[in-house]
Amino acid sequence: MTLKIGVIGTGMIGRDHTRRIQQVLAGVEVTALSDVNLDSARAVQADLCPDAQVFETGQDLIASDTVDAVLVCSWGATHEEYVLAAIAAGKPCFCEKPLATTAEGAKRIVDAEVAHGSRLVQVGFMRRYDVGYVALKKVVDSQIGAPIMVHAAHRNPTVPEQYVTPMAIHDTLIHEIDVFRWLLDDDYVSARVTFPRTCAASHAKLRDPQIVTLKTAKGTVINTEIFVNCKYGYDIQCQVVGEEGIASLPEPIAITKRLNATLQNEILTDWKDRFVDSYDVELTDFIKAATAGTAAGPSSWDGYMAAVTSDACVTAQEDEGALVEISYPARPALYN
Amino acid sequence: MTLKIGVIGTGMIGRDHTRRIQQVLAGVEVTALSDVNLDSARAVQADLCPDAQVFETGQDLIASDTVDAVLVCSWGATHEEYVLAAIAAGKPCFCEKPLATTAEGAKRIVDAEVAHGSRLVQVGFMRRYDVGYVALKKVVDSQIGAPIMVHAAHRNPTVPEQYVTPMAIHDTLIHEIDVFRWLLDDDYVSARVTFPRTCAASHAKLRDPQIVTLKTAKGTVINTEIFVNCKYGYDIQCQVVGEEGIASLPEPIAITKRLNATLQNEILTDWKDRFVDSYDVELTDFIKAATAGTAAGPSSWDGYMAAVTSDACVTAQEDEGALVEISYPARPALYN
Amino acid sequence: MTLKIGVIGTGMIGRDHTRRIQQVLAGVEVTALSDVNLDSARAVQADLCPDAQVFETGQDLIASDTVDAVLVCSWGATHEEYVLAAIAAGKPCFCEKPLATTAEGAKRIVDAEVAHGSRLVQVGFMRRYDVGYVALKKVVDSQIGAPIMVHAAHRNPTVPEQYVTPMAIHDTLIHEIDVFRWLLDDDYVSARVTFPRTCAASHAKLRDPQIVTLKTAKGTVINTEIFVNCKYGYDIQCQVVGEEGIASLPEPIAITKRLNATLQNEILTDWKDRFVDSYDVELTDFIKAATAGTAAGPSSWDGYMAAVTSDACVTAQEDEGALVEISYPARPALYN
Amino acid sequence: MTLKIGVIGTGMIGRDHTRRIQQVLAGVEVTALSDVNLDSARAVQADLCPDAQVFETGQDLIASDTVDAVLVCSWGATHEEYVLAAIAAGKPCFCEKPLATTAEGAKRIVDAEVAHGSRLVQVGFMRRYDVGYVALKKVVDSQIGAPIMVHAAHRNPTVPEQYVTPMAIHDTLIHEIDVFRWLLDDDYVSARVTFPRTCAASHAKLRDPQIVTLKTAKGTVINTEIFVNCKYGYDIQCQVVGEEGIASLPEPIAITKRLNATLQNEILTDWKDRFVDSYDVELTDFIKAATAGTAAGPSSWDGYMAAVTSDACVTAQEDEGALVEISYPARPALYN
Repeated sequence: MTLKIGVIGTGMIGRDHTRRIQQVLAGVEVTALSDVNLDSARAVQADLCPDAQVFETGQDLIASDTVDAVLVCSWGATHEEYVLAAIAAGKPCFCEKPLATTAEGAKRIVDAEVAHGSRLVQVGFMRRYDVGYVALKKVVDSQIGAPIMVHAAHRNPTVPEQYVTPMAIHDTLIHEIDVFRWLLDDDYVSARVTFPRTCAASHAKLRDPQIVTLKTAKGTVINTEIFVNCKYGYDIQCQVVGEEGIASLPEPIAITKRLNATLQNEILTDWKDRFVDSYDVELTDFIKAATAGTAAGPSSWDGYMAAVTSDACVTAQEDEGALVEISYPARPALYN
Repeated sequence: MTLKIGVIGTGMIGRDHTRRIQQVLAGVEVTALSDVNLDSARAVQADLCPDAQVFETGQDLIASDTVDAVLVCSWGATHEEYVLAAIAAGKPCFCEKPLATTAEGAKRIVDAEVAHGSRLVQVGFMRRYDVGYVALKKVVDSQIGAPIMVHAAHRNPTVPEQYVTPMAIHDTLIHEIDVFRWLLDDDYVSARVTFPRTCAASHAKLRDPQIVTLKTAKGTVINTEIFVNCKYGYDIQCQVVGEEGIASLPEPIAITKRLNATLQNEILTDWKDRFVDSYDVELTDFIKAATAGTAAGPSSWDGYMAAVTSDACVTAQEDEGALVEISYPARPALYN
Repeated sequence: MTLKIGVIGTGMIGRDHTRRIQQVLAGVEVTALSDVNLDSARAVQADLCPDAQVFETGQDLIASDTVDAVLVCSWGATHEEYVLAAIAAGKPCFCEKPLATTAEGAKRIVDAEVAHGSRLVQVGFMRRYDVGYVALKKVVDSQIGAPIMVHAAHRNPTVPEQYVTPMAIHDTLIHEIDVFRWLLDDDYVSARVTFPRTCAASHAKLRDPQIVTLKTAKGTVINTEIFVNCKYGYDIQCQVVGEEGIASLPEPIAITKRLNATLQNEILTDWKDRFVDSYDVELTDFIKAATAGTAAGPSSWDGYMAAVTSDACVTAQEDEGALVEISYPARPALYN
Repeated sequence: MTLKIGVIGTGMIGRDHTRRIQQVLAGVEVTALSDVNLDSARAVQADLCPDAQVFETGQDLIASDTVDAVLVCSWGATHEEYVLAAIAAGKPCFCEKPLATTAEGAKRIVDAEVAHGSRLVQVGFMRRYDVGYVALKKVVDSQIGAPIMVHAAHRNPTVPEQYVTPMAIHDTLIHEIDVFRWLLDDDYVSARVTFPRTCAASHAKLRDPQIVTLKTAKGTVINTEIFVNCKYGYDIQCQVVGEEGIASLPEPIAITKRLNATLQNEILTDWKDRFVDSYDVELTDFIKAATAGTAAGPSSWDGYMAAVTSDACVTAQEDEGALVEISYPARPALYN
């Protein structure tokens, strides 16, 4: 039995997921495409799935009988309406981040899914599927005692001019926000931001680097350095300190060389290479659950919690050094 | 278009490849199965591919119109006849190692494929598809100057009683024999074996460890330690020394822990875990080529060369310290 | 010419420095000893320096013509008076930490030394002489651009019952406080303390772990984890993030082993082993300067700044999350 | 009590040992110097030990009442006569390598020392005092089971034109020859040399790299790569494979940097930096034993065994691939 997928949004990530479904993964095919730019949808159709149908709107695509499940890869501001439509249609839906552009929007999705009564939505937090984080979680859960602290870093060699201070939260830290909730099986209660002097390579509208301190309900303190003009590479670091010991996220596989008086490994410079393998795994998880009419992995609730936490972190950026409390309603039983 | 695969031999590896084709990889399905034990074939059919047909013999399977390409996963002694039959039928054929149980048998396959005029056979040397070796080859080809030496090790924690000295070549070193030819783009000219004292954990019919020294046509010297009672883990090491520098095969991804006064990573103990990801990649390569009616990756010639080299290494084992020359006919143009 | 040293305080560290002077280092001898417990002084005399004279008081020792330079290794509360006496006598003086038990006391020493007009005092901050920190400083000064952040940790496997929360500053962080000023060539302007939940292994009067955030005059932010019940080992970590790259303090030399399915190095568990080699180097530096009638290395000013910073950190502990400003008078020219 | 040392030969190493004795080590002074070039001796006297006496000949120096113990740092061809004279005078003698330029010469020293009846000679094999090798030996002796194989490398970035093939044994491998006997507590029984193609950077009179295979009396096989035009650095590698696991010589302390898309450590390029700390330790050992009228550490017998083994390795170079047996008389009881 082959799962029939409709892809809304055929930009970079939509095209890449379409390729993945058509050429890499078993038991699935793209039967429908739509994009605000119809030519884009038709180009993907021509290149990757000639048998798919191109729809004028995402809503039409969701409604079509030829679609079992939906991938929302369109512009962020449109995510909420498509996800709500998919829930209304009772169709499993994979939504790229953000689930919605506001916490309120994400909450409306949670409410709709709860009203539906079973999970239909997976959010595209791919790090949970990365082989390194999966191995780290296994060790954190079983070998180092209860976590007490996390030391993390999210570094990018450079960012464009339009990347302003809050984007360090919404576009960058958002991955840590989700993955640490999952890694620690915990929720956040407060955020604080500390700014060192801004680095010389930054620009007027960006304070970079910054250190975000999150505290969890269980009392774990997480310090994450965000440094998006670090120059040397794209580098994701995470070390969990537990009652009995410490575990660290592994470095990506690299060849150790002895060359030019230097013992050396390459460090990646492009974020797209860092978690590239995890996209296959997250979609495999989606396909498996969607074939059974449901969803697994990062949920609407996770998307909502990420939105609430991001908002608190941005508030903390605006009031450097202040402790910003993070509050949210009780977790619906659907997400336990 | 979906490639229809017939699987001959439904033991451990045949079953696993069937699962891979049915559940993991795109554009392919298992349409036919056979096994000397028909119950085994029917069990795999029931579990993994209910629409597939079970054939009484591999020859019938190969001949069937429902089969575009063949996977030979049966007992080693039967490989030659099935591969020859697939070539005779003009169907792409993936053959698990060994290609044949003798160099002469492998040579007959080479001759048949050359007579056919285009490649149809891929041999299951999966290491060429391992992410570590692929990265190593890229560095060896471009960054460390021409290779001069290789230091390698193939270690296994323990082996059963029936594992005798020549199996260290046929079952163990065989992987290094193929992967170093590919890594160095070179051929072997001689072999020598040195035996240290046999370790206490070995048994009467096995001299373990041993060091096999291979020299190549370009003058590179490769020392490979084979130690199959090393106790501590399954460990594959490879370091290439070039004119300008040195490159090493990476360790498998592992979590670094600080625990119990020890900075530590796990080492694998089961060989099946070491190259598990490369099976998906080698079959993907086979599927892509077979869909186009041909074969890529490790060829019949590579299988033949591995057989010739293995024979020389066993001779070298029998005459410790002696230099055994390795000779073979000119490489047919088909394999350039 | 041999430098004649008087050692005040013959407990563990005083005895060890006496051994070092008598048996390891060139150009120096212990000619005088004193201790509040005369039997202790006589025992060290008998064991290590039979030709030395035992004095009833530190003041007598300092005044003696047989003493060119003084080592103050007595109980911390007595340091100030002995150092002041040595300055009054115009004799070079090496003082184990703390220089004084209060910032005011340390300031009195600074004032006395400034009044004297040249340096006479070296404080026993031995980390500045550790081969790892020295190598790190060289890289920080020349290769990674201006520092922006430091991520550090000071971990101890366990502490006794009498170790209470402020001791995490006075006895533990004190080393980081001094060594980071030197490493960064910078001064502190504020401190903040964050407490994760206290670990299960701690006791009622100790909040452990804690994270101390120091900000410097140049805008560098330093996060140091202090965790003195970490169980797994004595572990000092320090990573400096600069404009161009990152440099890390090396791990102590250790043998990498492959054993029991584990790739592993030993981690030290006893703090006394971690910087043991640096004691020889710091005393060599003292001897060289003292032979010329002066002092080098960590100064009275450094001891005073450490005291001021420690006081601020303890205040920050008492008011978790609050930003505590650190202020101090202008640096006297003597210390530039 | 101060040990009075006479230094014969005031070239680079003689001057450096004099500096070490005068300025670094306790309980010792240089009281006498001699050199075939008297101006050299006088220059060292002026710079480092104005109270020392300059002797016209090494023999006069040895005979002087002002000399308790002798350091032989002169040209290799003169070592034998000075060591024999020191033994005749009953004075402890530290001799830089080689102990003698022939195995016969070394044997004459052994015989003289045995006739004397107690140890007087220490040979300057400093690696036995290197912190890395000492730590490795401790692990090899206690944690990895009985050794079975050693994989080693001795690499130099480049060598001058006058460095010809046999010097790879006499000047380079000589260190491994001694240190592995000590590390394994074993003796050699055979040598074999394998030459890969010579690297492009070598010259007409040097076959480089080469692999020397030594087998020991206990059956351990040691493969050492010698590569003196490796370009990338001065690099000493040693991995011991035992019955239970593997232990490796640590890399020298280095700062790990993240810089320019590269995770990197410096590799040394100058051999003089690699074991620099071990010279202090070996002389400390000599001073301690000599003060007691005897010698410790590497013995005349070790120097003789190194000479015998070197000769066998050079013979093995001249007959590539041949197994050259290594024989020697029974070890005198003095050296047990």
